[in-house]
Amino acid sequence: MARKAIGRSVPRVDAYDKVTGRAKYTDDLADRNALIAKILHSTIANGLVTKIDTGRAEKLPGVVKILTCFDVPDIEFPTAGHPWSTDPAHRDPTDRKLLNRRVRLYGDDIAAVVAEDEVAASRALRAIEVQYEEYPAATDPEEAMRDGVPLLHEGFPNNILERHSVLDGDFDEATKEEGLIRVEGTYQTPTVQHCHIELPTSYAYMEGGRVVVVSSTQIPHIVRRIVGQALGIPWGMVRIIKPYIGGGFGNKQDALYEPLNAWLSVQLGGRLVKLELSREEAFYGTRVRHAVKVHITSYVRPDGRIVARDAKFVSNQGAYGSHGHSIVSKCVTAFRQLYNDERAKRAEAVTVYTNTATSGAMRGYGTPQSVFGMECHADDIAARLGIDPMEFRRMNMMPVGYTDPFSKNVNWSDSFNQCIEKGREYIGWDRKRELYRNQSGPVRRGVGMSLLWYNTAVWPISMEVSSCRMVLNQDGSVQIQLGETEIGQGADTVFAQMTADTLGVPFESVHVVSTQDTDITPFGTGAYGSRQTYVGGMAIKRTAESLKGKILRFASERADTGPDALDIDDGFIVRKGEPGSALFALSELATDVLYSMEHSMHFTAEETVQAKSNAYSFGAGFAEVEVDIPLAKVRLVDIVNVHDCGRLINPQLAAAQVHGGMSMGIGYGLYEKMLYDPGTGKLLNDNLLDYKLSTIMDHPHLEALFVENPEPTSAFGTKALGEPPTVPCAPAIRNAVFHATGVAANENPLTPHVLFPLFKAAGLIG
Amino acid sequence: MARKAIGRSVPRVDAYDKVTGRAKYTDDLADRNALIAKILHSTIANGLVTKIDTGRAEKLPGVVKILTCFDVPDIEFPTAGHPWSTDPAHRDPTDRKLLNRRVRLYGDDIAAVVAEDEVAASRALRAIEVQYEEYPAATDPEEAMRDGVPLLHEGFPNNILERHSVLDGDFDEATKEEGLIRVEGTYQTPTVQHCHIELPTSYAYMEGGRVVVVSSTQIPHIVRRIVGQALGIPWGMVRIIKPYIGGGFGNKQDALYEPLNAWLSVQLGGRLVKLELSREEAFYGTRVRHAVKVHITSYVRPDGRIVARDAKFVSNQGAYGSHGHSIVSKCVTAFRQLYNDERAKRAEAVTVYTNTATSGAMRGYGTPQSVFGMECHADDIAARLGIDPMEFRRMNMMPVGYTDPFSKNVNWSDSFNQCIEKGREYIGWDRKRELYRNQSGPVRRGVGMSLLWYNTAVWPISMEVSSCRMVLNQDGSVQIQLGETEIGQGADTVFAQMTADTLGVPFESVHVVSTQDTDITPFGTGAYGSRQTYVGGMAIKRTAESLKGKILRFASERADTGPDALDIDDGFIVRKGEPGSALFALSELATDVLYSMEHSMHFTAEETVQAKSNAYSFGAGFAEVEVDIPLAKVRLVDIVNVHDCGRLINPQLAAAQVHGGMSMGIGYGLYEKMLYDPGTGKLLNDNLLDYKLSTIMDHPHLEALFVENPEPTSAFGTKALGEPPTVPCAPAIRNAVFHATGVAANENPLTPHVLFPLFKAAGLIG
Repeated sequence: MARKAIGRSVPRVDAYDKVTGRAKYTDDLADRNALIAKILHSTIANGLVTKIDTGRAEKLPGVVKILTCFDVPDIEFPTAGHPWSTDPAHRDPTDRKLLNRRVRLYGDDIAAVVAEDEVAASRALRAIEVQYEEYPAATDPEEAMRDGVPLLHEGFPNNILERHSVLDGDFDEATKEEGLIRVEGTYQTPTVQHCHIELPTSYAYMEGGRVVVVSSTQIPHIVRRIVGQALGIPWGMVRIIKPYIGGGFGNKQDALYEPLNAWLSVQLGGRLVKLELSREEAFYGTRVRHAVKVHITSYVRPDGRIVARDAKFVSNQGAYGSHGHSIVSKCVTAFRQLYNDERAKRAEAVTVYTNTATSGAMRGYGTPQSVFGMECHADDIAARLGIDPMEFRRMNMMPVGYTDPFSKNVNWSDSFNQCIEKGREYIGWDRKRELYRNQSGPVRRGVGMSLLWYNTAVWPISMEVSSCRMVLNQDGSVQIQLGETEIGQGADTVFAQMTADTLGVPFESVHVVSTQDTDITPFGTGAYGSRQTYVGGMAIKRTAESLKGKILRFASERADTGPDALDIDDGFIVRKGEPGSALFALSELATDVLYSMEHSMHFTAEETVQAKSNAYSFGAGFAEVEVDIPLAKVRLVDIVNVHDCGRLINPQLAAAQVHGGMSMGIGYGLYEKMLYDPGTGKLLNDNLLDYKLSTIMDHPHLEALFVENPEPTSAFGTKALGEPPTVPCAPAIRNAVFHATGVAANENPLTPHVLFPLFKAAGLIG
Repeated sequence: MARKAIGRSVPRVDAYDKVTGRAKYTDDLADRNALIAKILHSTIANGLVTKIDTGRAEKLPGVVKILTCFDVPDIEFPTAGHPWSTDPAHRDPTDRKLLNRRVRLYGDDIAAVVAEDEVAASRALRAIEVQYEEYPAATDPEEAMRDGVPLLHEGFPNNILERHSVLDGDFDEATKEEGLIRVEGTYQTPTVQHCHIELPTSYAYMEGGRVVVVSSTQIPHIVRRIVGQALGIPWGMVRIIKPYIGGGFGNKQDALYEPLNAWLSVQLGGRLVKLELSREEAFYGTRVRHAVKVHITSYVRPDGRIVARDAKFVSNQGAYGSHGHSIVSKCVTAFRQLYNDERAKRAEAVTVYTNTATSGAMRGYGTPQSVFGMECHADDIAARLGIDPMEFRRMNMMPVGYTDPFSKNVNWSDSFNQCIEKGREYIGWDRKRELYRNQSGPVRRGVGMSLLWYNTAVWPISMEVSSCRMVLNQDGSVQIQLGETEIGQGADTVFAQMTADTLGVPFESVHVVSTQDTDITPFGTGAYGSRQTYVGGMAIKRTAESLKGKILRFASERADTGPDALDIDDGFIVRKGEPGSALFALSELATDVLYSMEHSMHFTAEETVQAKSNAYSFGAGFAEVEVDIPLAKVRLVDIVNVHDCGRLINPQLAAAQVHGGMSMGIGYGLYEKMLYDPGTGKLLNDNLLDYKLSTIMDHPHLEALFVENPEPTSAFGTKALGEPPTVPCAPAIRNAVFHATGVAANENPLTPHVLFPLFKAAGLIG
């Protein structure tokens, strides 16, 4: 039998092209004669544009057109990368125009210049004169919620975008139990940015009366709909093309500047207009991770069993709705799933508009925030009770066999314990917890851990669907097209592996059409929700089986046997169950059927699969740190993530996903935070010199370990791995610092600014 | 009921983009940093390259790589744009390498330079030194066939590529009938070139280990196979992309330089290499129309009825095989079909290699040559018998009800007589034949006519297949993808019209994906054989019906009725037979089905249709000329083509096809001929200054008339119109000159060089 592709670390299908620089990204594809668009951003954080004088700017050489917030259509549109819902109650906030007269953050988009080159466009920006009516700015949600603070959006009193609460069990009754210990804590996560290598870039032009946008996006089919909505044109009049992209991490799960870019081209009669953001613009003008503050109150028995918990989440939405309340809703879901309170749990969440960068989707989608709170809190409880934090977790975490009443997700396996065991052994938990127990001196070590929970795909919150098409070539190789997107994570390679094994052809015979083009690519919603191997895998399986069925029916004529007696193995038609019995090559058959004078057929297959399931993905993270107390500085000594993402399609790519997520998690735990000037609302560190992104220089060896419990609901046994790796690192680091120093910091990143006052208050620094 | 798209002269779908210059052609799409390839051509017409010294050229700045005929793979490949045949007996000649050491024409490809720019490439060409062993060249087939003449290709004695003969009836017996009049004539047609506006242009690069060629071709799927063959790699490792192209007329129904271009890129590790020919190179280095000489002997009764005919065709193939003998085979087929000899016919055809430009496919594919011979001959017979040439034709032409025993084609209607009547009336045949009967003086007028016969598609000679895919958008509009190609003729528009009416949506709701990409576009063989509306139409009909079926099944759930009770009209779901009864909009339904939480589906449809039929296309052409006898100059006064191409999908586009074909036919009759220096074999007029292409300045008003007899075997009642218009003009003009002067010229074009000696011999010039 042929060597299977699944389970092997085959090289990425795009490895050579990407390493040699031959792979084409949006900017590589744009016509060199493209007109250049640049955006004029507001220099106040809150207020109203009263006048824009473009007179001087328009006279500058090379300036083609200037359009302002006074010119745009009076349409407010949503930007979140969710499937459209035919139910208005399930739609995303629609609160943004192409350019905004009502300015809501420092850096809001108020005008756009289109010029023949970058220099002319930049000069024009400087020559535009703007007058504002300015209002006080609120950058903090608690401040923004106060009565009397100017409202960012009409119809949202106290700047509250949305609020909801949940209750499981009888909370009041549960907390009356005698002997319960009440533990409380408030945990604050920072605003951080995705910092993908490729900045948001697009270009737009018209063709056949329709507008085409080539864009670095995770969600081409969704962007098509949003551009249609923003411009007020039928969605079929829009075509989105997505080439290779240099990372997204959720930022490109929003329609960012595609609608504006499309509109600018339309205003110029369809001339090709390119719009590439600077790093600075990406920081304040695209999306960031919601800063979430959570206050948790737990009621536990002295033996460590949680009886009830209450959590109150406050989420900083920033200036515009984007994914809005759905991120803090995921915080609440994570809160409800990770630990199995014996009697009750209660949560409340509020999302608040502020005059800061718009928060949207980012790897983990609320889970990093929620898990940071819960997992810091877990160690706080364990410390209070004097029990091992690992044992505390084992006692309370979601048990095997748990079935969620809403999503119907099942915890099929003992994944948590298996992950914990692997991490425990790798990090030397028992020895080090003991070894580092009673340290003195200025430099101390500690180990900490965190669990992680995630789900796979978005059903039943949203529709889940994926379509796939396969085309058989005359040499027996196949192309595969999928609406799901390669965004740097290696999706194309994994799709090719799935196709190869289902169809029975060598991995090298599968050619992935990496570019999505909404005119031709089967519909899929794109890269988000750690959904692609799960939902896309279902579509691939069904499509490959359909194609295989057609091939075998034709083969059976030639083999003079029923199609059920045949199979395909390693590119050969074989007798079923006899992989070595090559009857004839698929390549021969493929040529024959196409050129048959009798019944010429172009063998292709196309299938849509709607996923009506979802799957739990589990894991645990462990960190060892060395804390220099006088410097209030943390050095990460060792770190490991252990994941159960089901069956590993490509172990090397899986590990790479984990490494990337860990890097992001380390930055979240130790370095990254967007800082605003409280007076002006201006972002202070909108570049990669001032914003401390975690890089390889800051990392120890990153260890990625796996537990493989194939997921029964998944076509290939897989479940989420894209987002989970970023989740456990920050709380594991925080808990390691707690272990090392006895100081429980409740705010990340753990910079010297955070730690110094805590160490001082704890008497560690004189 | 909605206004149907079929039958209306809707504007071309690409009109606006093409008029504004926004439509992208191959060269527009090539990266500006492309490396530039140029070809070194031989300066002898026959011989062997013994040495190439590239030393000096390689040292020139900007030169990247020079490859010669000593470097290419030892693979001889076919170039003809025919579907591959699994039967070796039905394959095209394989007699060409990527670069040829054995030189067979003046201008053969012997080396290629790849450089950073055009200037460096051109300088390098001049710096390469070549040594040859030279043989005598033969530019004329009769010379090339002589014993002892050097053979161009091994295994082809007397340079004969192929020879065949056919016999219907008992010729010897038939010609023994008493009282028969024997009429003989020899008719010679010239070598002409297609002269499409866009020169053959391509660029190639590698992606994912495969080679991609973007090319101005009529036949992307076929070129894929040929590039695979030429490079000796599996066909699936090749991807061909065809953007808009600026005309082809059959020249681009060959793989021209795509194989060389692909190979050059592969030799450079996949760097992007562009290869654009000059007009001069297009003349000698691509393809030309076969010059055919035919000798016809007819046996007719005094009343004009043909009893038997014999024809002997000699076809000049030029240096390489290309479509080879199949063109002169079509000459023979036309000879057998147009006239209905009462008792017998006999034909013999031979295709001969010569040291001239390679002959290939060109609009009409042998028919212009054959019909020129037959229709000159028809007038010669009529004159000899003293009967009206129109009456002579009516007496002998293919009768209504005729069924061809091989193709099974049926002459369903009295098309010939209907076309003749329309033309007769337009040109004022009866009056002018009488009026111009007895002219004297130096300037005289005449009217002439010609019939035309053509068939549609290539079945049963070759496989005929077309695949189509349709994609429903969320606004109820659709994309259509087809392997058949827009080459400037308006195919995309006609495909959109067919789709709109079959599906029941407005014409504006159909978006044609014009670009073919062999990785994703359904298989179709491309633009040739006047096949696309016929075979592509079948694929469109079946695919649109399939998509409609899916839509109506979903609609029936909502309408609470069976799908058979519903229909789609003007973009609305209606009750069948009640076009006005809009139940709901397709746009609404399309959004609903995609975003359904119940059963989300991406509605697409894909179908392959193998055509196992073919259809006759008929017509007649009439011309009126004014001949200045002393100057031996012909002025075309009036000209009309009357076609029965079945149902007209788009009358304006149909007329445009006819106008273009007439222009080409006028050039064929009056101006165009490639001239070789008999000593060196060098083409003397390889540019548009020296080669007299027929242009609008040379034309009178071009009248296109139609007779519409819908073809029963055709999905939309259509049959061939792409090629037929070019057929009747040259013989009609020749017969008009004959009528005006009494001089029967048997060689076109009717330049003063041809006419002067004839007028002199006839005593018209003193």
